[in-house]
Formats: sequence, C-alpha cells, structure tokens
Amino acid sequence: MAQKDAAVHAAIHDPFWGSRIKTVRTQMIPYQWEALNDRIPDAEPSHCIKNFRIAAGLEKGNFEGFVFQDSDLAKWMEAASYTLLSHPDKQLEETLEEVAALIASAQQPDGYLDTYYIINGLDKRFTDLRDHHELYCAGHMIEAAVAHHEATGSKTLLRVARRLADCMERNFGPEENRLRGYPGHEVLEMALVRLHEATGEKRYLKLAAYFINERGQAPLYFAGEAEKNGKRCHWEDGPLGLQYYQAGKPLRKQEDAEGHAVRAVYCYSGAADVARLYNDESLKAFCRRMWESITRRRMYITGGIGSSDYGEAFTYDYDLPNDTVYAETCAAIGLVFFAKRMLALEKRGEYADVMERALYNGVLSGMSLDGQSFFYVNPLEVVPEACEKDQLRRHVKPTRQKWFGCACCPPNLARLLASLPRYAYEAEKNCVFVHLYLGGQLQANLPEGQISFELSCNYPWEEEIRLRVTGCEVKNPVTLALRIPGWCRSYRATVNSEAINEKPKEGYLYLTRSWQTGDTLSLSLDMPVECIQANPVVREDIGKRAVMRGPLVYCLEQADNGPGLHRLRLGSDPQFTARFEEETLGGVTVLCCEGKKLSDAGWEDGELYRPQEAEKYESFPLRFIPYYAWANRGVGEMSVWVRQ
Amino acid sequence: MAQKDAAVHAAIHDPFWGSRIKTVRTQMIPYQWEALNDRIPDAEPSHCIKNFRIAAGLEKGNFEGFVFQDSDLAKWMEAASYTLLSHPDKQLEETLEEVAALIASAQQPDGYLDTYYIINGLDKRFTDLRDHHELYCAGHMIEAAVAHHEATGSKTLLRVARRLADCMERNFGPEENRLRGYPGHEVLEMALVRLHEATGEKRYLKLAAYFINERGQAPLYFAGEAEKNGKRCHWEDGPLGLQYYQAGKPLRKQEDAEGHAVRAVYCYSGAADVARLYNDESLKAFCRRMWESITRRRMYITGGIGSSDYGEAFTYDYDLPNDTVYAETCAAIGLVFFAKRMLALEKRGEYADVMERALYNGVLSGMSLDGQSFFYVNPLEVVPEACEKDQLRRHVKPTRQKWFGCACCPPNLARLLASLPRYAYEAEKNCVFVHLYLGGQLQANLPEGQISFELSCNYPWEEEIRLRVTGCEVKNPVTLALRIPGWCRSYRATVNSEAINEKPKEGYLYLTRSWQTGDTLSLSLDMPVECIQANPVVREDIGKRAVMRGPLVYCLEQADNGPGLHRLRLGSDPQFTARFEEETLGGVTVLCCEGKKLSDAGWEDGELYRPQEAEKYESFPLRFIPYYAWANRGVGEMSVWVRQ
Repeated sequence: MAQKDAAVHAAIHDPFWGSRIKTVRTQMIPYQWEALNDRIPDAEPSHCIKNFRIAAGLEKGNFEGFVFQDSDLAKWMEAASYTLLSHPDKQLEETLEEVAALIASAQQPDGYLDTYYIINGLDKRFTDLRDHHELYCAGHMIEAAVAHHEATGSKTLLRVARRLADCMERNFGPEENRLRGYPGHEVLEMALVRLHEATGEKRYLKLAAYFINERGQAPLYFAGEAEKNGKRCHWEDGPLGLQYYQAGKPLRKQEDAEGHAVRAVYCYSGAADVARLYNDESLKAFCRRMWESITRRRMYITGGIGSSDYGEAFTYDYDLPNDTVYAETCAAIGLVFFAKRMLALEKRGEYADVMERALYNGVLSGMSLDGQSFFYVNPLEVVPEACEKDQLRRHVKPTRQKWFGCACCPPNLARLLASLPRYAYEAEKNCVFVHLYLGGQLQANLPEGQISFELSCNYPWEEEIRLRVTGCEVKNPVTLALRIPGWCRSYRATVNSEAINEKPKEGYLYLTRSWQTGDTLSLSLDMPVECIQANPVVREDIGKRAVMRGPLVYCLEQADNGPGLHRLRLGSDPQFTARFEEETLGGVTVLCCEGKKLSDAGWEDGELYRPQEAEKYESFPLRFIPYYAWANRGVGEMSVWVRQ
Repeated sequence: MAQKDAAVHAAIHDPFWGSRIKTVRTQMIPYQWEALNDRIPDAEPSHCIKNFRIAAGLEKGNFEGFVFQDSDLAKWMEAASYTLLSHPDKQLEETLEEVAALIASAQQPDGYLDTYYIINGLDKRFTDLRDHHELYCAGHMIEAAVAHHEATGSKTLLRVARRLADCMERNFGPEENRLRGYPGHEVLEMALVRLHEATGEKRYLKLAAYFINERGQAPLYFAGEAEKNGKRCHWEDGPLGLQYYQAGKPLRKQEDAEGHAVRAVYCYSGAADVARLYNDESLKAFCRRMWESITRRRMYITGGIGSSDYGEAFTYDYDLPNDTVYAETCAAIGLVFFAKRMLALEKRGEYADVMERALYNGVLSGMSLDGQSFFYVNPLEVVPEACEKDQLRRHVKPTRQKWFGCACCPPNLARLLASLPRYAYEAEKNCVFVHLYLGGQLQANLPEGQISFELSCNYPWEEEIRLRVTGCEVKNPVTLALRIPGWCRSYRATVNSEAINEKPKEGYLYLTRSWQTGDTLSLSLDMPVECIQANPVVREDIGKRAVMRGPLVYCLEQADNGPGLHRLRLGSDPQFTARFEEETLGGVTVLCCEGKKLSDAGWEDGELYRPQEAEKYESFPLRFIPYYAWANRGVGEMSVWVRQ
C-alpha cells in the first residue's frame, strides 16, 4: 500500500505488517461495511447508515444505537480512504463517494451534523456536551473527510467537514453568544488541527486551541451544564469526578494522566498538536508531564493503559494489575497517536519506543490473526473461570468477540493499521526519519528534491535491516535518521559495508551523506531474549519477569504450557532458544526455555493451608508466544508476567 | 461472666477474651444502645427504637433506615441479655424489659411483627420475601427472646417470639392457603430451632425444616414472587443469580458454597440444626459438602469468607484475592455459628479448628482494640491509596468505622463475644468438651451430677493449659474431651503430673477418669512460629507464606515495617523470635525475624520496565503482629501473605 504524510510516500511490502494491512483492506473494511449496513447475520445491528438515511429524510424511523454511532461510519471511511492510496478500488471509491453524498445530504443548512440530534430534535443540540458525543462525532467526520480528500481528491466530504467545523466555530468560543463548552470525549481537537493543515484555514487551529485551553477552566462548564440539564455526572461519587473527562481543572494544572484513558490520550494528542503549532511552552510542558505520567508510572509493558474497568480509566501511580486491567485497544491506539505527536514536537526515541511497544503488543492484541474478531480489553493475565464467575474480572474476555454493540475498537484498529506508514516515516527539512521498521519503497519529498529508498527487513523476527537508496535528486547532504530502539542494547551499522562513526542522539542515528543511488545502509539490531523486570514499586509484578525479544512482549498460554500458569517459574537465569515457526500462529518466533513448575505432590488430600514443607519444583519446559497472538487457539489461561 | 448452654455453666476469667468480653459489656452494649436511640452525635441515626415506637402508635412518623433495621435492636437485646448472665445489672435488665414491652406493643394481633410493614402497610407484607428481610428480622427477634428469657426469666419477649413464630407457621408451609416461600436472608431457621429447644414446641422445628427443605425447589418461589411484584432480581445478570440467596436449586442439589457469604453460612447453620434433630442423612451430607467447599476451597487463612465485594459473595474454588476480598465480619461470625452446629452433629476437631481460626482472626479483626470502631470488610492486604483511588478496592477501608448505616456487624460481634462460652464448652452425656481454651470456672451438669473445674491458661500467648477439678458429684467415670488443635504438631498432657496414654481421636483427647477434687490436668500445646503455605492452586498466595503462631495469623504492618510491604521477603528459613510485649497493641506476642527487602537502587531514574539486572535484596528486620490487631495505629499498608 502507498501513503503519504508530510512528505513521505511509502509503498509497504512488509512481511509482518503487510499481511495485517491486507487483512484490514480485504477483510475488515468489507466486513465493517456490511456491519454498518446491518447486514451481518446474528450480530447486533449498527444502525449507522440507517441513521444517516433517516437524518437525510430518505427513510422514516428512529435514531438507534449509541449516541456516538455516527463515528463508526466516519472511522470506517477514514480507514477505507487510506487503503485506496495503495490499492485503487473503483467500487470502494464509488461507495465512499456515495456515503459522502449521503452524509452531505444529512448535514443541516448551518453545517450541523449529528444524526442523533437531527433525528431527535435539533433544539436539544449542544445541551449535553459532557456525555452526548456530538463534538466527538464531528471530530471523526473531519478526520474521515481529510483522509477521503487526500486519497481520492474528492471534496464532497471535505466540504461537509469545513461546513461542520465552521458551524462549531460559530457556536463555541470565548466570544459572547457562544458556548464556552468543549468536547466530553476528545478527538475534535486533533481533527481540527488536521483540517487546518489540510486547508490552511487558521480558524480551525484557533478553535482547537480554544478547546484545549478552555478545558477545565472555572467555572466548570460541565458543572454548569449539569445544573441546566439536570443530568447528574455518573462519576461524581467515585474517585474520577470530572477528571474522567480531563475536565476537572485546566490542563496546565493537571499533574497526572487521569480519567478515561482513551479520552485522556486523545486530549493529550490534541494538546501536543496545538502546542507544536503555537510553540506553546507551557502546553508542551503539560504534554511532557502527561507523557511521563503515563509511560513512567501508568503504562503496562504492552503499551496498554487504563488500569481499571471502572471508567476504563487510569487509577494511580504504579497500579498495574494484570488481571483486572482494562487496557482498551483504543487507548493503546490513542497512545500511538500521542507518541506520533510528541515526535512531531521533538525527536526523542522514547516516543517512538512507546509507539512501537503499543503497536506490536497492546494494539495488535486487539485483533485476531484472521482480523475477524476483536478485544476491547487486553489483559496481561487471564484465568477463564474468573472471567465468568468473578464480577471484578467479567469485563475481561478470554476470547475475542465478533463485533460489538459499542464498536469503537475495530474501526479504530482499521484506520490505524491502514495508515501505518504515517507513523513509521517522517520527513522534516532535509531529514528522513525512520521511526518504525516497516519494509517498503519510500519516497521522501524534501525541499530540494526527492530521495527514495527501499527498506527491507523481516522485523521483528530478524535483526537485519537494509536501506538501499534507489534515487536521490538532492545534491546537498541528506540526513537519514534511523531509530535505535530503546530495547536494543547493541547494534551494528554500516554504509556500503563500512562501519560508521556516528553515535545515536536521543535514540536516533543521524547519517548525513550525499546519498547516491545504490548506497546501502545496513543496520543490525541485536535481539536477544530479555527478561524484563518492573520497577520495584509496581506491586503486581514483584518477583516476576516478562519475556521480550525486540519490541515484542511474550506470554505463556495454556495451549502450550497447560493450566496453572501461576505455578510456573522462569528460574534466575533461563536459557532461551528462539525459533521462527512458520506454522505457528501465522508465523511467529517462539521462545523456549527450561523453567520449573511447582508440584502439587503432597497436596492430594486437598488441604487449603499447611505448614511450610520443602516445595518441590519440577523441571518444566516453558514455551512463550508473542503476546499479540494470544487467544487464537481456543480458551485458556494466559500470563505475561512469570515468577522468577 | 457466667453462662450456660446445654449443661455447662462458665464464669470466664480469661486474659485474652476477658477484656474483650468486658469491652462488649461496658463499651459496646451502652454505645449501641445510644446508637439505637439516635443519640450518637455526628453518626447516621439508626431510627431503630423510633420505628418501634411509631409501629406501637406511640409516635407519629415514617419508617426510616434499612428494611432490616429491626434486627439491630434484636441483636443488641440478645447480646445485652448474655452479659446479664455473668454481670447482673438491674438497670440494663429494666431497660431490656421496657424494650421487650415496647416490642410487644408493636406486635400485631395475629403475632406479625416487622415495623417496616406495620408502618408502611400490612397489605404488602410477605410480598417481597426475597429482599425485604421480614423473616430475617423475625429470626433475630426470636434469638433475642430466647436469650432474654434464659438470662432474666422474663417471658415478655419470649411470648412475642412464640406469637411471631406461630404467625409464621400459619402463613408458611406446604399446606394449602399458605405461602410456599422462605427467607431471602436466612437466620430464622436457626432461630426456630432454638425456640423449639427452649420451649419444646415441635411446630417450630417443623417450620425450620420446611424452610430448609423448600428452599430452591421448583417452581422457584422467588421467580414467581418477582413475576408478581415486578421487582427484577438485582443479581439476575451476574454470576450469582438466585444462588445469591442459596435459592436457585434445592439445598441437597447444591455442590458448592455459593452466593452471599453471610446468608450462606446462616443457611448451612440452620440446615445443620435441622439435620441433627431429624437425623437427616442427606441433609447432613449437604452440610458436610458445604463445609468442605468453604474450608477446603473458599476460605481465607483468617477464616474470612466471601472473596468478592460483588454480592459480598463466594466466587469460585481457590479464588482468594487478598486485596479485593470482602470477608465480612458477619460472614466469619456465621462460619463460627456453622462450626458450632457441625460440632453438635459430630465431634471432629476440624470444626473447632475453623471456629477458632475465624474467631481469633477474621472475626476479631472486625473490631478495634478499644471496641469502638468496626470493619465490615477484612482484607488480607491493604494499600491505603488503592482504597481511595481504585474503585475495585474502595469497599476495603484502611481504618475501622465508628458505626454504620448498615450496622449488622457490630451488634453481631457483640452477641457472639457475649456468648463465647457457649462455643468453647459443651456437655454431652457423661462427657465435657473443651472446644476452645478460655480460662474460667466451669460447672457441667451431667446426667449423674455436676462436675466443676477451673481452666487456667494464657492462651493464645502461652502453651500451658491447666484444668483443675474443683468438684465432682459423679461417681462413675466422666470424660473430659480436650481439643488438640489442628495447628498443634506436638503436645504434652499429664494428669496429676503423670503422662497419659490416650491418643487423640478426631482432634480430641478423651480422658475418662473417676475425677476427684484437686485432680489436675496439664496440657502443653507447642506453639512454634509456623510459615504456612497455601495449596498451590491458590493463585494469589503462590510463592508466599503466612506466619502463624498457635491459632493466630500474623501480618506485617507499615507501622512496623515501613511502606512497600510487597518488597519484603521472608527468605527460605526465617528464624523467628516470639516476644510478648505488654505495651504493644494491648499486649501481644510480636514475632520478629531477619527478612530481606528489595532495594530500589538503580531505579533512581524512574523507569517503569528494564532488562533484568541482578536484584539487590538487603537484610531487613521483619516484625509481625497478630492480624486481629491491625489498623490500630493509624493508616498504613498491611499484608498477611509475604513472599518467601
């Protein structure tokens, strides 16, 4: 597939991601289209297209589905548009154009667009910003419009988006007679920046900045709104309060990542965009603070975020329970968004490290290998019986579900994977950044001309990465900035077989040359199996290790290791063998070592407690698979963290 | 205090329990009386006495408080009555008689008594047996009446109880024109058996048996009732369903202890009573099955039961989370009730072992050392920050509360402790059983006369127990049956300084002699400190140890060991010193050993995850206190299970 962002055009031919991106294009997009049209037998209908048809006056009926149902269609359009960049598809393009026209016909004369309120009564619009998602739906519609325009050149949806943004701009802001509100679920902020960047229209950026700056200012908008509409805040009595929406205090006064995790990272992403474009130091400081709060104190090793089912939210520092976790797929996706924007702010490898961590683990685990079923919740430890019989763990599912009543994760996955090159590569002045190692043909349009190269690798299974320059119009030196992942403790790099002298700076190896066609850059990232430990303040991981190789977090599954995973131990110095198995889980490198298992000899009489006797550990072969591939072989226990 | 049950009269002079029983008498009973009269400043009013006055027509007003508010008064009366046995108190006796008269004046002409329905409309009575607790309140009133009668000879409340039981008997049963219902919260079953034993009236036993046998029979009464009153079952969609009430299937078809833990053990207690009096083998088998389910698969080491806050209920086998636990004080109390009744069925030391385990740990932890504040939930691991910020742990409180809106635990504690001798001693034919070691003067009225002795001990701190016969009217041999606790791996017993030959049978040492005044029986129960391990199938305790000495479970507290208890380890062979500290926590034996603590050296930069490096454990002195005494020195972490 081919894509462009900033100035990098990429045609991905990657052994790892290629097939997944193809799955998105050939399976998920068509499947989701059927779902949006309520044509999946035995699945809860989406009502999505139907709501638009009713709103456009083409059908009679009531609004049905969640208040944010419109966003599903927008996310689908965005993902579908991305796929067109690499795989022109006349029929899909026509479908998209038809949908764009349908949406346009539902749009109100003043630009307003939200089928819930169009169908249920426009007099109620903007009266429940806190919970009713109309600004959220607007955000996704705008993202879809820009993607649709970029992919097809069509302005049908872009016009809708501009009229919608104009409508928002007329209704919100500090000016008199405008509402001083902001989204209850963030995303519009990012979308407005994107629309600004696509159209050059400053007002959209200004509106985004207004939303970011206004959020949580006194008097609290959501408190006033609740007083008017009489709708109590569901989170009022719990530990979250209005911080569930990141709206309890101004962003610049917020010290920790708090509240609903998806909302939070969407909020911080928008803030990073605004901070970058306004060069706003206090907002940058806020973004860095939130980044640190998440990645140093509130993030699972998988890149999952949101420790608690309650509010799908952050809890407190170092509270990272593996079994009652939420770690929504969309939250990991949102962390990828945030990382990308922090990279746009400043080039620090840690941003790309977390982006990679989330992508290869907590995001990818959200979908099955066949791309047809999905996790909302991505636990790091599962006992199927608990998911069934313990209310605290009932939100954790041991199997992926076909589709969801609240279907936010699958289309979000689709749009992320379909636009993956935008996260992997970036051109800035005379520099081409490689943040993630995806194989493919790349053309970077730099100010002085194009440089193109081919990146080949079998990442994350193999250590070798090769960049071959396939063309360079730029006469002056061009910098290729290759990320040296944080997990990588030693590497070798050569240019045309000669060792290089450059040392990495903030996680990137900057190689500045007058590149010639045929120049070959080789990078070998050592990928030993590593036993990872968590900071000792993390209670839930104490005495345990997680196994990683390269960017991949591994796990034990019952399918390989039998039941009772908690009885297994790694031992203090496990010797791993890493072997790529073509036939296993779509082709994965499996890690094996000799571990040990606590025997239950002596417990035959079924006592529950007894005085200590010498414990018997028996030698036991442990077999680890990549975390993202868990739950593809039936129901069973799974565990990322293993006792040492 | 002096008490009699079956045929044992005991005047307790016990260094451990004596002061606690005194606290009940001098602190809790007067405090609770004030609470029942809404005279505690800053506390939620109980409304209890007020409701009775309104029901009796002495005041105007609405019913207020929980639907089971009447039971608080009954529990208080029961506890207060027990204290009169050992400490005659004219004023308290008069108060009790006045309250009994008040209750009698609220009772309806047909014997019905429940202030909620008397005040709100009798037409609705018996329409919501599932949730409205009128049979529960009746049960507690009957228990109070029998205790009041035994202590004072007054028949005022006993008459109320008989009329109330008669009313129940006319309304419930398999006969035509009676309701085929049963209590939504069990306790009436036990109470009816007690009333039967106090009055000799067979009908009460028969009604208890009916409730036990009818429970969960098809068609399900609660399902039919819900259909009639349109009240959905709160537990319907969760894992509990009608088993929350132990009412989803007939008891004899139930395989595991399920549902609300307090209800469950109250139910099984009633079933054990009925099984004993009817000599019903299938019901005995049910009781043994539930006993095994609890004590071998679903009980905390503290005797706490109910793994989940959701429904305050059992979950599934070996699911014993230490931090999200419920382990309600009343559930541990109920387990003591159940154990006593299993002992009445058959003399097996394991029943008394569990009774002792619960009493000294999960029951006693429910009250502060000063007897003025109380836990509902008795966790085995606490991190105060989690109690505040994590919704899953918000039901766990790091400090005991003064009084409760739902005040079931404190009066339940009071009535249990005030009647403790009934659990410690039992006479059966020519045998006197000592189930628990409480010091005091005992008189057992055996068929052939009285035997009296003095039991002196400093249990559970010291190993020595001495029984001196102070009088014996029985000419034939009498058996003294002394429990050899399950935790005790070696002991020495002598009679008049001569070693004995008898070996324990099912946990009891049966010593049959023609006892003479002055005969002295010495028993020394070795009490080394033991590191206890849980069955390897218990995930939450894997790799951990609990420290016990005698019947006491110990714990680490932040007050002694600093924060970050999870970073501590016991080591594989800890050498403990046990020292009684008069000044600590009201006088406790403190256990100390050299353990180790995981250093956070090398983590100064605040990373969350990193490749394994050699962990540094530093030698660290561990100090353990008895679990029951935790949370008496301010807010802090606590943990029972410690990594090895």
